[in-house]
Amino acid sequence: MLFLTPLLVSVVCILIAWIFKNVDGNMERRKRETRARAQARPWVEEDLKDSSDLHAVEEDADDWQDSEENVEHIPFSHTRYPEKEMVKRSQEFYELLNKRRSVRFISNEQVPREVIDNVIKAAGTAPSGAHTEPWTFVVVKDPDVKHKIREIIEEEEEINYLKRMGRQWVTDLKKLRTNWIKEYLDTAPVLILIFKQVHGFAANGRRKVHYYNEISVSIACGLLLAALQNAGLVTVTTTPLNCGPRLRELLDRPSNEKLLMLLPVGYPSKEATVPNLTRKPLDQIMVTV
Amino acid sequence: MLFLTPLLVSVVCILIAWIFKNVDGNMERRKRETRARAQARPWVEEDLKDSSDLHAVEEDADDWQDSEENVEHIPFSHTRYPEKEMVKRSQEFYELLNKRRSVRFISNEQVPREVIDNVIKAAGTAPSGAHTEPWTFVVVKDPDVKHKIREIIEEEEEINYLKRMGRQWVTDLKKLRTNWIKEYLDTAPVLILIFKQVHGFAANGRRKVHYYNEISVSIACGLLLAALQNAGLVTVTTTPLNCGPRLRELLDRPSNEKLLMLLPVGYPSKEATVPNLTRKPLDQIMVTV
Repeated sequence: MLFLTPLLVSVVCILIAWIFKNVDGNMERRKRETRARAQARPWVEEDLKDSSDLHAVEEDADDWQDSEENVEHIPFSHTRYPEKEMVKRSQEFYELLNKRRSVRFISNEQVPREVIDNVIKAAGTAPSGAHTEPWTFVVVKDPDVKHKIREIIEEEEEINYLKRMGRQWVTDLKKLRTNWIKEYLDTAPVLILIFKQVHGFAANGRRKVHYYNEISVSIACGLLLAALQNAGLVTVTTTPLNCGPRLRELLDRPSNEKLLMLLPVGYPSKEATVPNLTRKPLDQIMVTV
Repeated sequence: MLFLTPLLVSVVCILIAWIFKNVDGNMERRKRETRARAQARPWVEEDLKDSSDLHAVEEDADDWQDSEENVEHIPFSHTRYPEKEMVKRSQEFYELLNKRRSVRFISNEQVPREVIDNVIKAAGTAPSGAHTEPWTFVVVKDPDVKHKIREIIEEEEEINYLKRMGRQWVTDLKKLRTNWIKEYLDTAPVLILIFKQVHGFAANGRRKVHYYNEISVSIACGLLLAALQNAGLVTVTTTPLNCGPRLRELLDRPSNEKLLMLLPVGYPSKEATVPNLTRKPLDQIMVTV
């Protein structure tokens, strides 16, 4: 045994060295992975991590068939305008939409219930992958619930800002503070929370994938913004970070629904201001071939 | 030294055991990770694999600031209608949009250029994360380019269908064939291909992340659909599968642009039919709190 001792000692040394290297490497790799993950999707909430969120392939998915295969086809009835009127209508519609601005100062004046019903009906006419209509519009008018929503969002926003502050090399505290205080969540007479249904249920109770659900619901939000603008109401498009699961629970929505957007809706307050911004001209967004 | 040997042997044994456990664990973990990654995005096309596609955090991202921080703020000017008119306008807008249908039979009649300009200007008024306006609308009128687009899409669609056929237990060949033949790509006088800019470039040439680019561009598509319907034109919302990279090259778009949607636009052909579908009633899409 005696002659083995030096050998054993050296083996032990090598092993110890290797182990330490290995452990270090592992830890570094783990750190790197964590960092990479954090950079790629730093804020993605658990609730959103759902593979059915991703696009998927299906025979009808690319064509957004309005139809179940066996639905009867009927002649399409169409309203056609003379060319001159088409130009005028399209010009006026552009001018209407071009006046829309994201408004963060909303008065507490009530808005007619019928108008809210109509703008949501308009949003519900959006096309959707395989005609799944994967949207739920939660209209919140109750002041207590609005205030709870505000508390949740401001709490999470504060964490968002504070966490990120370390990484910013220039920080204007005051400016950030105004960003995480969302007074409009209390003052706006209506909050519309738009949920995407990431899957539905087939007759047999099994999950039914909702293809392109996020794109479909975003298109519906586009129609909703147009409808609000057309009715003379204002809003600001927000996607509250990390608040989805808590808001979903507060509003008692099922787990297949994920919050996509929150729109506070009302009239602008008297002192409402907007940043003096311009939009890209047509030749910067359109290419003709 | 002699009395150390049994101790050394046991230390070596423990170390070896620990190392093997560690290595096994690593390999299993790596396998698990690879599998999870593959399951999460099984089909994503190369061209789409871009981390800037994913949502990301930024101080302004949740609030969709229209603004660079240092932009001057100005009073917001608002058009307010009497309540009765608001109700009427919102009702009429709903009725207009509710007549929209996805139409796959498009006549080859030309449409006024000004109308196309106006509907794209309307789409360009959409809100976007940090006012990045991350969209490019490629308007294709050239018959040869339209035909090349058709060839690319039908080729890829045919592969899509044939590949998936094995997985289907009931296959109606004829029905599928009509799905991958897209005559409207030749007949429609205008094809609008909507690209999302997954990132932009800062003044120093570095990548500038476009937060929420897909949601922003989808909202713009919602405005575009509303504008087309308002002008009396028809379209069908399509998201051609796996064709993005080839169409991007054909149309000479830069690599930071990814195809999101293709809308063939025109008047309906005389024999146009649509599936006899209904939309969900308001109480199935709206919840009031």
